[in-house]
Amino acid sequence: MTLPIAERMKRLGTETAFAVSLEATQLARKGKTIYPFHLGDMNIITPLNVMEAAIEAMRKGKTGYCPTAGCPELREALAKDVGVTRNLHLTADNVSIQPGGKPTIGKFILVAMNPGDRVLYPNPGYPIYESQVEFHGGVGLPYGYLEGSRGFVLDLEAIRKGIRADAKILIYNNYQNPTGASSPKEEIEELAKLAVENNLFVLSDEAYFDIRYSGEAMSIASFPGMAERTVILYTFSKKFAMTGWRLGAAIGPVRLVEYISKMNVNDESCSNHFIQYGALAGLQGSPEGPDYILTTLNERRDAMVERLNRIPGIKCFKPEATFYLFPNVTGAMKRKGVIDVEEFRKLCLYETGVSFCTRRHFGRPLPGETEQYIRFAYSGITLSQIDEGLTKLAEFLA
Amino acid sequence: MTLPIAERMKRLGTETAFAVSLEATQLARKGKTIYPFHLGDMNIITPLNVMEAAIEAMRKGKTGYCPTAGCPELREALAKDVGVTRNLHLTADNVSIQPGGKPTIGKFILVAMNPGDRVLYPNPGYPIYESQVEFHGGVGLPYGYLEGSRGFVLDLEAIRKGIRADAKILIYNNYQNPTGASSPKEEIEELAKLAVENNLFVLSDEAYFDIRYSGEAMSIASFPGMAERTVILYTFSKKFAMTGWRLGAAIGPVRLVEYISKMNVNDESCSNHFIQYGALAGLQGSPEGPDYILTTLNERRDAMVERLNRIPGIKCFKPEATFYLFPNVTGAMKRKGVIDVEEFRKLCLYETGVSFCTRRHFGRPLPGETEQYIRFAYSGITLSQIDEGLTKLAEFLA
Repeated sequence: MTLPIAERMKRLGTETAFAVSLEATQLARKGKTIYPFHLGDMNIITPLNVMEAAIEAMRKGKTGYCPTAGCPELREALAKDVGVTRNLHLTADNVSIQPGGKPTIGKFILVAMNPGDRVLYPNPGYPIYESQVEFHGGVGLPYGYLEGSRGFVLDLEAIRKGIRADAKILIYNNYQNPTGASSPKEEIEELAKLAVENNLFVLSDEAYFDIRYSGEAMSIASFPGMAERTVILYTFSKKFAMTGWRLGAAIGPVRLVEYISKMNVNDESCSNHFIQYGALAGLQGSPEGPDYILTTLNERRDAMVERLNRIPGIKCFKPEATFYLFPNVTGAMKRKGVIDVEEFRKLCLYETGVSFCTRRHFGRPLPGETEQYIRFAYSGITLSQIDEGLTKLAEFLA
Repeated sequence: MTLPIAERMKRLGTETAFAVSLEATQLARKGKTIYPFHLGDMNIITPLNVMEAAIEAMRKGKTGYCPTAGCPELREALAKDVGVTRNLHLTADNVSIQPGGKPTIGKFILVAMNPGDRVLYPNPGYPIYESQVEFHGGVGLPYGYLEGSRGFVLDLEAIRKGIRADAKILIYNNYQNPTGASSPKEEIEELAKLAVENNLFVLSDEAYFDIRYSGEAMSIASFPGMAERTVILYTFSKKFAMTGWRLGAAIGPVRLVEYISKMNVNDESCSNHFIQYGALAGLQGSPEGPDYILTTLNERRDAMVERLNRIPGIKCFKPEATFYLFPNVTGAMKRKGVIDVEEFRKLCLYETGVSFCTRRHFGRPLPGETEQYIRFAYSGITLSQIDEGLTKLAEFLA
């Protein structure tokens, strides 16, 4: 007997990067040394003050439910923190605590998008945008990134084209996974202008807002007319190395946030109670923990970019933010006589143990796309692994 | 500027019981003594062995992501535990760990129900069933409970009528919130037969399976032909007093569970990593913690049922399971000259401080429903509060 599965499940995507993780694990089990550049997870432990505050709250009995939108103290502290860093007037009412950054994507789409609505989203980009849009009956309009002189730049023409095709919603991920792209002020300004003029709802995925090595982080929500139409995806995962804690927030206009909290009532009642006190300690405590995390990641970035650019046929920008690199490997693939980027990935993995994702794990290639890219994450790897792994890769590609 | 909100948000329900909680809190702030019988939360702290195991895992660095379906050790332990208590052959592949019991409701509906499908669900019942069914485009077919000689019994005729009206899915909550109803074996048998004969998909909400004071707990999944068509909603919330930890599982046929885990990838990546080791310690450790919780709840139940039945115009069954009572207050309302049960609730709250929910918080009244009911929870109240509160209520209703 086979039970019928709902039609919508055919439209549900996934993170195909998990398959890379599985392949690497299987090779490691067979004794191969693996250099895990495919992981978006972190090998840095959560700061001690965050852990101790969570433990104290647990022991004090914060083991029952908390309000569905989150603990009032945490909502207030986050409103203050995000208000200061984004120059916004926020109160606790603008904040709905979530069990991670990811839940904000699906909930935003359910609240903002009707079936048939067109949604602009980045491609290459985090694959869950496209998955949730299509799963809930929307039509995805992908926009890409172009190689600029110093880094990737938004393909604004693709966004304008999407607007002409009646886009209602824009998903924007400044400090971008997988490209590492940072929009300069002018680019965000232009995007904000387009959003206001064309009455777009915006989801600003700011997961990597605090993982920034130079310059000042900017949010599209800070630009004129944007606060009232933007929901910020906030997460504690990266800044405080709390990926496995699952804690984040949806931050935006009160009316929208209330709907998102109503989704919380339906989906999970509330987020874990006592860990919210850990996050509170993180926000209000010494910046030592986040500083250490940032310094560690910065060293890795510098080591990697330098080594990658020494490999013939690889060209890698030095992003100001995120913990990702998105090198152009078109030349290296030609030298090896490989046409398919997935074949290139497997070749490198089996020959050198260097494991990475490719452009394909971040969306279907766009029409006219000719250059080939791979994605390195440096959040889950050590400096010595970087040195050893990239040395092997350089030898193999020499 | 007002942004359009998606149409589907009009169909999203909520737990109106939260409004009762808010009203009680506001009265308490004004200095009134409140007896909180409205809460489904627990005033018992999580067992120490669960807390210590979670803390140890956190300190050991289980602060990164775990697999999307949950930690393998916990999935295995839960498959074993649920396999033994339900007499099922389960492996880790049958288990998808969730951030609470509640996520299983929405995910099951998204996986199993097409828009337009008819879904049988209990009313009075947990309001999230109806909300999620209607939100995702289904048509709810409510079925009620009838007063039997010793407790509430399923209105099987209403279920048969729903099947004739082409129901595809059955949501069943044995050890039921709010009635406290336990199906005897014959009732589950009959329901299972109907499900198999009519090819129904079943969600068996077993949140209160382990909160049982006498007799043996039974799952509909154990009956012939049912394992292949049933998803069990499991939660750690009640047995281990872990409501605020948010941890549970969807347990069922591998193919369905795989789809549910694919929803995890999209919705929240995974559940909190280190607390899964707390739950594992709970499952594998001494039964002292759960035993203490059950004994405490049992004492409260006995004290309440005895006191309530002494009040003229109140008739209360003594449920074998759950931490809820659903007394018939038709007589008491008549004596007070009150027609509306919500008015009765407010009257009791303002006059005595005794705060409870009513039948209305668990669904729209069914056609022909004439008796009036209120719901007491005894999970968040002490014996002395029970004594004091119900004494005041008795005096008021005398």
